Amino acid sequence: MTRIGMACTKCGNNQAFSYDHVTCACGGSLLVQYDMELAAKTMTKQAIQSRPSSMWRYKELLPVSSPEDVVSLGEGWTPLSYMNIQGIGLPVDHVWIKREELNPTGSFKARGMSVAVSLLKERKARYAAVSSNGNAASALAAYAGCAGIEAIVFLPEDCPPLIVQECLSYGARTFRVQGLIQDAGQWVEAGKHLFGWSTVATLKEPGRVEGKKTMGFELAEQLGWKLPSVIIYPTGGGSGLIGMWKAFHELKQMGMIADPLPRMVSVQDAGCSPLVSAMGNHATVLDAPAATGMRVPRPPDIDLLLHILKETGGKAVAVNQVEIDGAQRYLGYRGVSSSPEGAATWAGLLKLCEEGWIRRDDSVVLFNTCHGLKYGKSLGLESVPLLANLKELFYHTS
Amino acid sequence: MTRIGMACTKCGNNQAFSYDHVTCACGGSLLVQYDMELAAKTMTKQAIQSRPSSMWRYKELLPVSSPEDVVSLGEGWTPLSYMNIQGIGLPVDHVWIKREELNPTGSFKARGMSVAVSLLKERKARYAAVSSNGNAASALAAYAGCAGIEAIVFLPEDCPPLIVQECLSYGARTFRVQGLIQDAGQWVEAGKHLFGWSTVATLKEPGRVEGKKTMGFELAEQLGWKLPSVIIYPTGGGSGLIGMWKAFHELKQMGMIADPLPRMVSVQDAGCSPLVSAMGNHATVLDAPAATGMRVPRPPDIDLLLHILKETGGKAVAVNQVEIDGAQRYLGYRGVSSSPEGAATWAGLLKLCEEGWIRRDDSVVLFNTCHGLKYGKSLGLESVPLLANLKELFYHTS
Repeated sequence: MTRIGMACTKCGNNQAFSYDHVTCACGGSLLVQYDMELAAKTMTKQAIQSRPSSMWRYKELLPVSSPEDVVSLGEGWTPLSYMNIQGIGLPVDHVWIKREELNPTGSFKARGMSVAVSLLKERKARYAAVSSNGNAASALAAYAGCAGIEAIVFLPEDCPPLIVQECLSYGARTFRVQGLIQDAGQWVEAGKHLFGWSTVATLKEPGRVEGKKTMGFELAEQLGWKLPSVIIYPTGGGSGLIGMWKAFHELKQMGMIADPLPRMVSVQDAGCSPLVSAMGNHATVLDAPAATGMRVPRPPDIDLLLHILKETGGKAVAVNQVEIDGAQRYLGYRGVSSSPEGAATWAGLLKLCEEGWIRRDDSVVLFNTCHGLKYGKSLGLESVPLLANLKELFYHTS
Repeated sequence: MTRIGMACTKCGNNQAFSYDHVTCACGGSLLVQYDMELAAKTMTKQAIQSRPSSMWRYKELLPVSSPEDVVSLGEGWTPLSYMNIQGIGLPVDHVWIKREELNPTGSFKARGMSVAVSLLKERKARYAAVSSNGNAASALAAYAGCAGIEAIVFLPEDCPPLIVQECLSYGARTFRVQGLIQDAGQWVEAGKHLFGWSTVATLKEPGRVEGKKTMGFELAEQLGWKLPSVIIYPTGGGSGLIGMWKAFHELKQMGMIADPLPRMVSVQDAGCSPLVSAMGNHATVLDAPAATGMRVPRPPDIDLLLHILKETGGKAVAVNQVEIDGAQRYLGYRGVSSSPEGAATWAGLLKLCEEGWIRRDDSVVLFNTCHGLKYGKSLGLESVPLLANLKELFYHTS
């Protein structure tokens, strides 16, 4: 058992491990701490290599006590694809894209929920609730279903219909709520007090950050225990960013990596970019924000996110809908199904190249956090030719 | 270079490797042959273990000559999930589900197209066409896009709209055709003669069977170089079944496995079950067949499929729409997003258990060939409660 307690990211205070008190008296976030010396004994580079191809290969640094409580659907160990960008005039040589859309439930949210639901199983919880822009809800639905725990999910009214459908197909009690994600959050809090639900909302429990941390571990392992110089990540609540930052510090502590931390870049929707504003830049707001995972007006711990961007020499950058649409087309035509959030990282890369912030010798990792299919717009099939005779084939292919 | 030629599965004749002549004069299918002794030198169990987590870990037994021609989007090495079926009264102890929905493009078709498009790149083809019930088309679209080859795809008129959308998003020239998959096939043949397109339709080129073969390799490796006793596989054109059967024979030839071949079961839609009929059983036809990958009235090489089912002591079984719907719900509530084809394998398992054909000590592997999301029906969002005040939460949770 390597889990030994929690520490505050703001004041540094330590406390015992808790399933549901993860905010320090000072307002900072409490993150799980491990016995790193004990972990290092078994979590060696060589040992990991022969373990199953899932994020649970890093089990020593995940907070679940007993293997029997691990709720797994095959999450993690997603491909890191090298992008062929030669000949397109981009002033950078090496770009990879981490294919988080190939997780169960089609998004990176599976990682966090695998750990969060495992902790719920460990504590024998019966109900789990979440407010979400969509993907965290469907991930909770799947993992809770797998564990025999009842999921209750609250989504903004304009959540993409396929994601709502997904929640239902995994058996979650599914509600839509007027307003944005923070409005949905009020219902979870109400249910917690009224019905004793456990909440797995962002930074309300210790598991999700730990699960997302494995994106950082995998990046290091897949690059041969090297780190890229830049990570571009779409940021809503930001727990993925927090998780990866924590992962890199843990690997350093164990002596498994030597590189400096990557400059971490948050990409946001120009219509909703609290981090860009807080970093002292102003986004040009052209549109209302789209209903994506980036639409989080009030991230639960924005101070920690700012700290991470500054500590690593990173940046926050806003991209607009036109740029996102173009990026989605670009990636699609190269065989990668990207969500608006994932496409935003490519758009962010273009912008940072234009600004000269990315250097030619940088190695850059983009994160495609979700499958594009989940945002599927209803298609006017009449726009797709229906062939009836050979003459038409000539017509359409001339 | 381990690729040495092709052999006919019917008359045994050998011929040189060909990119597009894969039907023997006798009518049998020509499959790729390798220098197995040469392959065995480098493709050892230990060597494979440290290779990338994709199907290209078995590169010695894939027919692409040069690594530069490999077109990869991270396909293969999908999770094999152990199903927790205790307490549901099923008279079998060990069931796994191979999670093919976690491939790029959300289906097992990615495997075949990765190899087929690599061979197109090797021969410097510019156009690739396919007739498909949907998933082969979107996989071709993605891999061709990645390789800079133009894809032209022909789909039945009633193909699920999201899959049509997927083909468009990967940049394929996309056509719908009146009728079924064989009707779509006529357009590909026409384009081949009129415009010089390469066809990658089922059993019209050598790559797709080889790519799908890797499902068999992975099964063996993931089970510790053991084979299950039963494989239940949804069958349309059947090249996945042919591929796995070939894989097991190749592994035996290399001395990498000792177990007898699994009894291979084809699951079909009761409304379209040519294999069930050919095996001498009659399916009770309740419905017209749904627009899924199983709707293939005339598999290109039904003789070979029958041979495989008989040689392995397998079976063909038909399931109807009600059974498929129920199976999809069952798997969904346990966190697995299954396509109708994937769900059919669970329905088939129930049927075979009921018949007593499955024995308690059997180890069974089901194949979830595709993500359920791709068949997403348009959701009446009005059926999902839109909460406006706290009182309603009480109402809906009472």
